[in-house]
Amino acid sequence: MKILLTNDDGIYADGLCALYKTLSLEHEVYIVAPEAERSAVGHAITIHYPLRVREIRKGKFFWGYAISGTPADCVKLAIYELIGPIDLVISGINRGANVGINVLYSGTVSAATEAKILGYPAIAISVDAYENIDYCFCAHFISSFLNKISNLPLGNLFCLNINIPNLNPYQIKGIKVVRQSKAKLKEIFEKRLDLHGKIYYWQGAEEYTETDPETDVVALKNGYITITPIQFDLTNYSDLEKLKEFFHSMVINF
Amino acid sequence: MKILLTNDDGIYADGLCALYKTLSLEHEVYIVAPEAERSAVGHAITIHYPLRVREIRKGKFFWGYAISGTPADCVKLAIYELIGPIDLVISGINRGANVGINVLYSGTVSAATEAKILGYPAIAISVDAYENIDYCFCAHFISSFLNKISNLPLGNLFCLNINIPNLNPYQIKGIKVVRQSKAKLKEIFEKRLDLHGKIYYWQGAEEYTETDPETDVVALKNGYITITPIQFDLTNYSDLEKLKEFFHSMVINF
Repeated sequence: MKILLTNDDGIYADGLCALYKTLSLEHEVYIVAPEAERSAVGHAITIHYPLRVREIRKGKFFWGYAISGTPADCVKLAIYELIGPIDLVISGINRGANVGINVLYSGTVSAATEAKILGYPAIAISVDAYENIDYCFCAHFISSFLNKISNLPLGNLFCLNINIPNLNPYQIKGIKVVRQSKAKLKEIFEKRLDLHGKIYYWQGAEEYTETDPETDVVALKNGYITITPIQFDLTNYSDLEKLKEFFHSMVINF
Repeated sequence: MKILLTNDDGIYADGLCALYKTLSLEHEVYIVAPEAERSAVGHAITIHYPLRVREIRKGKFFWGYAISGTPADCVKLAIYELIGPIDLVISGINRGANVGINVLYSGTVSAATEAKILGYPAIAISVDAYENIDYCFCAHFISSFLNKISNLPLGNLFCLNINIPNLNPYQIKGIKVVRQSKAKLKEIFEKRLDLHGKIYYWQGAEEYTETDPETDVVALKNGYITITPIQFDLTNYSDLEKLKEFFHSMVINF
């Protein structure tokens, strides 16, 4: 397969490197990734500044294109300008899980969503840890997952958000297909003073309040590799029907 | 009502000013908005830099809080730190429509979505023009819409994406409740050379390929005020069921 790799941790990230090393043994792999970390940028795109493209080499070898923009920019620019049509986009391996509400803030997932918008199948991959990460296992899992991908009952266009627990492989309980949790994050804003006595805030999230085992948040915590298929239609169809009926019977005067 | 206003065009934007002037006649209105334009930032949040808050005055009067972050940051910071619980969040009035795929890139809509995530009802408002905008009509429309809001069959928690055509009020055909279009945008990347002969790209979108009159894109173009209820669950439930069945019958070896 012709695979485009991107991420939101930047082109030099270990997770991307591990994916490249493993997948390039069997596939034609291209890298177009942000020049530096762009996490929590959600589905941001760059329209008010020009985008710069830099060719990155590792020793003698061409490694990939570093982009001055966001993960979504990388996918667009790769497909429209730098690489052309591809068979699959893989975004990751992200350092830190992308489950629950965080899916909306995630640059990793947004890159995969952008691929689907453009008509290409995509996978976002994240590992649930920030230290001592076994990227090698994650990359091999994805490699063997790709061999089964043609059997998936999803046709040619899909977007999968995959999260991997950072456990020894024998401790992983299996694969679980789950919905995105909608439960609240416990968030904090910590107020601090700078060296000039002026206030600033750090934003952080503490933990999820989710308890349903059929959600990404809980299944991951319980030791499963989670798979959540992603869509990009934000319409709330249940509210849509109610509102249609309501406005149908209402007279509007301007 | 206790209303929080925000936007992605920045705290000095005309659309926000028009909303404030009209809504503050009947409601308790607070402003927490980005210190400068933050359009196309999607659902980005600021976690790698501290957030700064600046009190803005217009002459003698306190106008609102300018935030160094994104629209989603503004809503969080307003509710967790600066204002506390409110009855409604209104994001806008945005200069330029937010329909179709652009809903995913929109800071305006993401601020409203963030409010819903936090448990507060919200409305995003955009007007389909970049010049000669009648913000006054838009603000009055919203003001009268708010008087009907308690009749909406949606309970206490909703998120509505409203787009207003920039027409004379008598030319507007009515209100239409429509789904978000998923059709492709015709996008361009224009390659240019800087003064040092180095390449850069401008990203832009030309037009929508949508034709279905029951979508936000086409209804707005046809002269309707469009209303699309928004959700933040990105799970593709149709694919979820197919995958559950598939993985249920598959043996995984790690």
